[in-house]
Amino acid sequence: MGASAFVSADEGQWQPHQLPQLKSELKRIGITIPAEKLADLSKHPMSAMVSLGGCSASFVSPNGLIVTNHHCAYGAIQRNSTPEKNYIVGGFLAKNRAEELPGGPNTLVYVTEKVENVTDRVLKGLSPSMSGRERHELVESRIKSLIAECETDKTARCSVPAFHRGLEYYRIKQLMIRDVRLVYAPSDRIGNFGGDIDNYEWPRQTGDYSFLRAYVGPDGRPADPSPNNVPYKSKDFLVVSAEGLKKGDPILLAGYPGRTSRYKLPSEIRFARDVELPGRAAGITADLSVISAATMGNAAWDVRYASVAKSLNNVLKKTQGLIDGFARKDIAAIKDVQDAEFRAWHRQNGGNGSKNLLADLDGVIAQDMAASRQEGAWLDATHSDLLKSARTLYRLALERQKPDAQREAGYQERDLSFIKARLTRLEQSFVPQVDEARYGAALARYARIDAKLRPQGLDALLPAPTALNAMYKSTELADTAKRLAWIGKDPDAFRKSSDPFIQLAVRLHETGLSLENRRNEIDGNLERVIPQYMAAVIAWKKSQGKPVYPDANSTLRVTYGTVAPYAPRDGLTKGPFTTVEGILEKATNKDPFIVPAALSEAIKAKRYGVFKDPVLNTVPVNFLSSADTTGGNSGSAIMNKRGELVGLNFDSTYESITKDWYFDSEITRAIHVDIRYMLWLMKEVDHADNLLKEMTIKYPKK
Amino acid sequence: MGASAFVSADEGQWQPHQLPQLKSELKRIGITIPAEKLADLSKHPMSAMVSLGGCSASFVSPNGLIVTNHHCAYGAIQRNSTPEKNYIVGGFLAKNRAEELPGGPNTLVYVTEKVENVTDRVLKGLSPSMSGRERHELVESRIKSLIAECETDKTARCSVPAFHRGLEYYRIKQLMIRDVRLVYAPSDRIGNFGGDIDNYEWPRQTGDYSFLRAYVGPDGRPADPSPNNVPYKSKDFLVVSAEGLKKGDPILLAGYPGRTSRYKLPSEIRFARDVELPGRAAGITADLSVISAATMGNAAWDVRYASVAKSLNNVLKKTQGLIDGFARKDIAAIKDVQDAEFRAWHRQNGGNGSKNLLADLDGVIAQDMAASRQEGAWLDATHSDLLKSARTLYRLALERQKPDAQREAGYQERDLSFIKARLTRLEQSFVPQVDEARYGAALARYARIDAKLRPQGLDALLPAPTALNAMYKSTELADTAKRLAWIGKDPDAFRKSSDPFIQLAVRLHETGLSLENRRNEIDGNLERVIPQYMAAVIAWKKSQGKPVYPDANSTLRVTYGTVAPYAPRDGLTKGPFTTVEGILEKATNKDPFIVPAALSEAIKAKRYGVFKDPVLNTVPVNFLSSADTTGGNSGSAIMNKRGELVGLNFDSTYESITKDWYFDSEITRAIHVDIRYMLWLMKEVDHADNLLKEMTIKYPKK
Repeated sequence: MGASAFVSADEGQWQPHQLPQLKSELKRIGITIPAEKLADLSKHPMSAMVSLGGCSASFVSPNGLIVTNHHCAYGAIQRNSTPEKNYIVGGFLAKNRAEELPGGPNTLVYVTEKVENVTDRVLKGLSPSMSGRERHELVESRIKSLIAECETDKTARCSVPAFHRGLEYYRIKQLMIRDVRLVYAPSDRIGNFGGDIDNYEWPRQTGDYSFLRAYVGPDGRPADPSPNNVPYKSKDFLVVSAEGLKKGDPILLAGYPGRTSRYKLPSEIRFARDVELPGRAAGITADLSVISAATMGNAAWDVRYASVAKSLNNVLKKTQGLIDGFARKDIAAIKDVQDAEFRAWHRQNGGNGSKNLLADLDGVIAQDMAASRQEGAWLDATHSDLLKSARTLYRLALERQKPDAQREAGYQERDLSFIKARLTRLEQSFVPQVDEARYGAALARYARIDAKLRPQGLDALLPAPTALNAMYKSTELADTAKRLAWIGKDPDAFRKSSDPFIQLAVRLHETGLSLENRRNEIDGNLERVIPQYMAAVIAWKKSQGKPVYPDANSTLRVTYGTVAPYAPRDGLTKGPFTTVEGILEKATNKDPFIVPAALSEAIKAKRYGVFKDPVLNTVPVNFLSSADTTGGNSGSAIMNKRGELVGLNFDSTYESITKDWYFDSEITRAIHVDIRYMLWLMKEVDHADNLLKEMTIKYPKK
Repeated sequence: MGASAFVSADEGQWQPHQLPQLKSELKRIGITIPAEKLADLSKHPMSAMVSLGGCSASFVSPNGLIVTNHHCAYGAIQRNSTPEKNYIVGGFLAKNRAEELPGGPNTLVYVTEKVENVTDRVLKGLSPSMSGRERHELVESRIKSLIAECETDKTARCSVPAFHRGLEYYRIKQLMIRDVRLVYAPSDRIGNFGGDIDNYEWPRQTGDYSFLRAYVGPDGRPADPSPNNVPYKSKDFLVVSAEGLKKGDPILLAGYPGRTSRYKLPSEIRFARDVELPGRAAGITADLSVISAATMGNAAWDVRYASVAKSLNNVLKKTQGLIDGFARKDIAAIKDVQDAEFRAWHRQNGGNGSKNLLADLDGVIAQDMAASRQEGAWLDATHSDLLKSARTLYRLALERQKPDAQREAGYQERDLSFIKARLTRLEQSFVPQVDEARYGAALARYARIDAKLRPQGLDALLPAPTALNAMYKSTELADTAKRLAWIGKDPDAFRKSSDPFIQLAVRLHETGLSLENRRNEIDGNLERVIPQYMAAVIAWKKSQGKPVYPDANSTLRVTYGTVAPYAPRDGLTKGPFTTVEGILEKATNKDPFIVPAALSEAIKAKRYGVFKDPVLNTVPVNFLSSADTTGGNSGSAIMNKRGELVGLNFDSTYESITKDWYFDSEITRAIHVDIRYMLWLMKEVDHADNLLKEMTIKYPKK
């Protein structure tokens, strides 16, 4: 935490209902759409926003047409691609609805229908004398029943996320649409131009967009995929504006940011900076080199682990960005100052009736940091995809012994289809020999951890390095059908099994559970103390006339900012726009910088049409804004001052990575695709005239 | 050549007398000092400009005080430094004239006194039937006598450079001041901040400046260094303006640019791009790794070759910059278009009475390229410092057999002191074992050259690889005194010598001479054809109302431009200013990014004083302008619209390197030290109050 809640320009991932408090700020930067309207989730434009579960998106027609990032629809594209019909490289365009392709079980659309403050129902009558674990488990069980109550509507997916780590709870009811089809995606040479090399980088020229369509049963309610389904009649959709933005123009951004840590204490920042992040970077680096060595020379294995390596590289780059950012700027020291100011205020104001609060907080945080070191060791000790599958299966068997409402979150009936999907999907990114190499290396890393930092008793339960090979040879869990067959078996079957990974999962269960109980105890304490702390911080900020936004928690948020360049270093300015000419500048004819011929020709012929920017004299591709985003905001709508769609969020700059911990308005910039590039590609390169016609597009006046 | 003489914005290294033709252009960018005044070398501000021979500089007080780059005064600083009094690291400041230190024989100041057009005297009555070599030798001998006539004034150093490769000749008479003293230099941690890493790079924060003083005899004429000498009474000096510049402001730059190739034909560009530059880069890379391997583990040897390696690295970076630049932009193709336009014009205009000119030109250029391949092979075959010394000595002996006026340029009486200085200076950067390794590797490279591209008969004259070690063991030339003792000996003594390098020099002499004769033949032809070609180009440009500047030839030139950023890549802007904060940003506590404590403290304390820029809110360090510069422009005065000193030129950006061949106004930027940084350092860090008092400084109005 640390009272970093100082709201500087453009900082803040606001709950929509908070926006009226920011009225003057929105007006100052030039937003004309009223704050009250933005606060109402049932009204335009907020009712056009949807979640894809991990990504954000928005409706752009009354017939369920959805626009999001290319990387958010990648699974759907990949799933429909074959060597003969390679939609990844060739792109895909359904010329009519009949040609639209199934997105598969992992492509889901969540339409928020209702948001209620349920804080009272979650927290009422909690006794201060409860242990952390008792408190945590009681809160969890209340949340589960709030969810169950909501999900009596079978088409709904409900959640009760905590805000400010438990100061408030909201119940969010979402319509979950499970027939979602691929409508249009450019070639990944456009949609992923620059690939991993340009990830988190600027200058950037990525056409990271694609179109999906939500389908429902003939009754208008969500239904399993079926040819009889019909396009979802979206109540609301965004009007698209091709009029463009220029440097300094205001923007609004709405979406589902995943997780931030803006209110961490200075001690937590130092722990992350000095212990957690360097450890994570070293672990991932080691894991990546094991994968690389194990797949070397085997093209099929290499393909299996391509997405694993990609995602590990992404986490590594983000981790390295945090390490670099913390080295560049002493964020802990900045937080020290803010924290000291807050503590002084808190003392002067009689500690708001909780004078031991800060000591209590420091104590719980210290426990949290100590526990997280053991949890890190546990991750190394269990770093095998087969073991993880076995543990999930055994846990599921154990939880199913209980009534559904009492089961651990994630193992209830409502979770079963997700568990199955996950256990099935493993086959796409798994090779036993590679998993063996990774697990062997992880166990070796575990063995090098200071003994005091390993979970008690764990060492004796782990397989000897020499035993691994035999385990991988005799296990049947690598077979998808045999893996799935364990679903529904009772715990005894697991205990009697001779499968070495099932055996290991059973053997490790108690240790895992005791780590979990300890975590629940600490979380319960955090949930007790942090809301008090945040209430005090909010009171402090209120005394300065400043609102406070909660850390991101995958719920719908609004942020605003301006189209703005930044100076990453003295003498150097980045952005705010890139142009189609920059694509040719980077072209190497080698992945990820191959430019499709049709695109290259259109650029060379300067067929800019109405999409030519009057200042740049060419078609803009990406642009930067000062909006406050994080992971989960991928695909978020970028709107102009009137709430019209002008772009899609898809990344942020390398220097911005520390923003999850500290928003530095000088250097924090989000990267967006300019809608003009998308429309231009649809017109000049991909000829998606049907979609251009379906959307409501405002073209610039001549 | 190729008619690239299209004058776009800010292109042009103009002879001062050409400036009145550019009156409207100067006015357009905002220069208020009249063009006629700039054209007059006897008037302010041009009469304040001096050459240091390879660097540019200017007077900044009526008492001979000169400001130039730190790297231009480096020899003088190094020469006075000892481990105890390390002025390189510590900087040096003479608090009064008595403390000023001798700059040494290589620190010379040239004050231009007279410039006369002597074209007629050089070219009159040349017969078109002469061979190239006859023509070249006749021109050379006329130039020599023009120089001799001028140097009857014993304090003068005269030269007769060709303009447009022989269309015009000017005789330049310079006062050569040979008692030049070091007055003030900041620490090289300021003056060379960023070192080789930042060489040719932006962002840049280098305080590349220092002060010298010219001394003359009590009679006011140049004299050998002596305590009796007095400061030279400079007729003119620049007023210093601390008022500062901002983006878009006009600047003037005056100095002595060394050499450009702006009028090359497309075929010459392709030859350079495809043959010469890659060959040079490979050769230098190989040589550098030989030096590195040969000096490895021997600190003393490493020091000897530090400056050799530095200068090779500098050439390599420039060569690589050319290769990269030619790859980035197809300059040959651009020149093709210009050349075709010119040829079409030339045809239409009856070839200006020389209808075979273009065919003739193409033929001579082809000969030139063929000869240069053999010359490249010759350089490998003779790549030994000892052999080069031996060849110089033997040639000197041969030339001294002739009357002075008939000797080859470079071997006349007037050159003797330079030859001695060079042969002496060798000891500072030479180790026999390293020279042996370099020569051995160069001979191996020579052996790999296609036999057709090696000079005829040379193979048989070269030492066998196995013979080298014995040669280095028995030669006495590595001893400075013994080396110098050969000066004055007659050719026979060389022929009878048993010194293996003297023997080799004698043996190679005829081959060298025949290459030289061939070169003279080609140069004579080039000197005959190119001036006709350039005259046609000038006529063509004149028909478009555009003046043409000659390629740089180390003579005084004026260029102008504006303070301007540039976009090296789509989405990225560099400059135009850096600030003192950028110094701390780069600080690593490791060479070349060590920041002196006094500087670091002044920055952290924000002691900006009057030198704070109103836009940047801090002290500017370096800035970029669009002025047209090249090597030799180091130390050139940057003047504001009124001709007041506002900075010093010291480098250009990496993307600008191709400007020697083609001036691309979009990306060509020169890098300057802002005078405000210099003055700020002098006041806040180095306390050079005596110099601040001596100069005439205009401070910004409060």
